Amino acid sequence: MDKWLKSLKTNTPQEGFELAITLSQMGVKYTQPSERVRKRLRPIYSNNAGNLISASHVIAVNFRTVAAANNYWQ
Amino acid sequence: MDKWLKSLKTNTPQEGFELAITLSQMGVKYTQPSERVRKRLRPIYSNNAGNLISASHVIAVNFRTVAAANNYWQ
Amino acid sequence: MDKWLKSLKTNTPQEGFELAITLSQMGVKYTQPSERVRKRLRPIYSNNAGNLISASHVIAVNFRTVAAANNYWQ
Amino acid sequence: MDKWLKSLKTNTPQEGFELAITLSQMGVKYTQPSERVRKRLRPIYSNNAGNLISASHVIAVNFRTVAAANNYWQ
Amino acid sequence: MDKWLKSLKTNTPQEGFELAITLSQMGVKYTQPSERVRKRLRPIYSNNAGNLISASHVIAVNFRTVAAANNYWQ
Amino acid sequence: MDKWLKSLKTNTPQEGFELAITLSQMGVKYTQPSERVRKRLRPIYSNNAGNLISASHVIAVNFRTVAAANNYWQ
Repeated sequence: MDKWLKSLKTNTPQEGFELAITLSQMGVKYTQPSERVRKRLRPIYSNNAGNLISASHVIAVNFRTVAAANNYWQ
Repeated sequence: MDKWLKSLKTNTPQEGFELAITLSQMGVKYTQPSERVRKRLRPIYSNNAGNLISASHVIAVNFRTVAAANNYWQ
Repeated sequence: MDKWLKSLKTNTPQEGFELAITLSQMGVKYTQPSERVRKRLRPIYSNNAGNLISASHVIAVNFRTVAAANNYWQ
Repeated sequence: MDKWLKSLKTNTPQEGFELAITLSQMGVKYTQPSERVRKRLRPIYSNNAGNLISASHVIAVNFRTVAAANNYWQ
Repeated sequence: MDKWLKSLKTNTPQEGFELAITLSQMGVKYTQPSERVRKRLRPIYSNNAGNLISASHVIAVNFRTVAAANNYWQ
Repeated sequence: MDKWLKSLKTNTPQEGFELAITLSQMGVKYTQPSERVRKRLRPIYSNNAGNLISASHVIAVNFRTVAAANNYWQ
């Protein structure tokens, strides 16, 4: 796969949160590389309350990692 | 997206908990940007015991991050 | 919401565990503010093995945070 | 509730693992105080693969806390 | 139960990963002590994608603990 | 099993993310050693939104461990 992750450092907490989203999406992408399939699944999970909460959970775990890497932007 | 997260610092643990709720909601919002859809799903998950426990779980993970960022308000 | 969380410090590990339970319940309460609905759901999740294990999971995550805030009561 | 948790310190890692099990069970007990109900649920979750894996997950989270409290028994 | 966990220290990361597997299995074993029942459940979860991912999740949590106990084998 | 994990150190965050994926897959492989069965399950979980989110969750937990082992590549 191409280079997509050079550093866990971000300038702001919000950019860190958005990096956490990218990490969460890449976890899906490595497991299901087909963009066609991922696009087909999007309307399913994005309209399912349980799936959306689960997606937010993964982002939370990745955000913890990114926040620690940035010393919580202190 | 607009700026919504400037800092993980809060004055009190309760404000930290409420920031954790915001982070959890934003994880959903980035995944499902449509406010219309999110509003449609609210009566579903907010009346479902399993979904509510899962939502509290995500908040707990984000609260851990916020608490660490604030040195646990010591 | 009223002030309900002033500090993560507790005198004993057991009080810390009970604070973790409060945090877990408050995560639900912020998501579903109606006491009537929460009372209606109680007999559902409290008689469902999977829900009870999930509830204990949320408490465990919050207990980790409280324990760290108290330096593990050392 | 009676005193049941005086310290997170244990003499050995195995006692720490067993304390993690107690913590996981107490999370369930606080949520469902009725021993009769908990006994009725036991044959359900203890014969359900998904529930057993979830129970082991909760123990793992609590074990992390206990292990940290004991400086990993180093 | 017999002594089965003397230390979280391992010589290599791979042995640490295998200890994490043991910890995950022991969480199940303490919850369902009957070997007969556990054997009956094995073909169920080991052929179920969701259960396998959940099992890997528990191992990941325990591996974090073991890795921390070994200072990440640095 | 053969040696597959010599170190948690990687040169870059992206290699660390890819190691986290390997760790997540190995958690499945130890639980279900049959490559035939794992191959049969692949089209199931890789086309299931909930399973894909769960897979990304496991990767996130393992990535936290790998990132900590590398001092977040600072």
